[in-house]
Amino acid sequence: MFKKIDHLGIAVANLEKAIKTFELLGFKVAGMEEVPEQKVKVAFLPVGESNVELLMPTDEKSTIARFLMNKGEGVHHLAFLVENIEEKLAEFKEKGFTLIDEKPRVGAHGKKIAFLHPKSINGVLIELCEVVGDGK
Amino acid sequence: MFKKIDHLGIAVANLEKAIKTFELLGFKVAGMEEVPEQKVKVAFLPVGESNVELLMPTDEKSTIARFLMNKGEGVHHLAFLVENIEEKLAEFKEKGFTLIDEKPRVGAHGKKIAFLHPKSINGVLIELCEVVGDGK
Repeated sequence: MFKKIDHLGIAVANLEKAIKTFELLGFKVAGMEEVPEQKVKVAFLPVGESNVELLMPTDEKSTIARFLMNKGEGVHHLAFLVENIEEKLAEFKEKGFTLIDEKPRVGAHGKKIAFLHPKSINGVLIELCEVVGDGK
Repeated sequence: MFKKIDHLGIAVANLEKAIKTFELLGFKVAGMEEVPEQKVKVAFLPVGESNVELLMPTDEKSTIARFLMNKGEGVHHLAFLVENIEEKLAEFKEKGFTLIDEKPRVGAHGKKIAFLHPKSINGVLIELCEVVGDGK
């Protein structure tokens, strides 16, 4: 089973403006990071045991840029924390889920991450993530 | 500030099928409820300190039915727990957010709930909720 909601990924066109909006709601930015692998700049805003992650594309060919073009700003993915991501991927593949990533890749904070395709999960793009080391 | 993510609202066309999918992912249904005010049937699936809520319309004129028609299945709203919902609504209105509900109404588990309009929050439909009594 998933340990918790790790984060909620929200696609935004302008990171600075989005941060101001979420700050008005009471959120505080705990960190920012550029993830070249995914061509995004990310801001982390903790809430309870989870984070809101605001994602802005740094390249117009990135997945997030295409999402913004097709659907506009909004929730992009839900990320759940797992303990053994390779095991989970094998299990979900066996159960008939469509994997976007057959093997984990590196996400923000150096986490191991992998996406499951929304077509097999009621239109929801789910990210599995596993903390590596101390997660910093 | 929000205390935690209370739940993630996911709009689904067929609740039984959606539950099977989420059970394959490792979720377990902790309860189900019909919320006549919102014309939905809801299944609650706990994860960490939060829940996934699968929402199926019980009437084709409900908000969720319209969402499914326009956008298909997927994440409908993000719900955050607050301590004094009336205070928060007044604060957010003052700050320029567009409220869908000027006053809280009754949601699943008898919680007080109110929605903020996605147009002022990067396309994200946010629900505030406050537990009343023991939350059962």
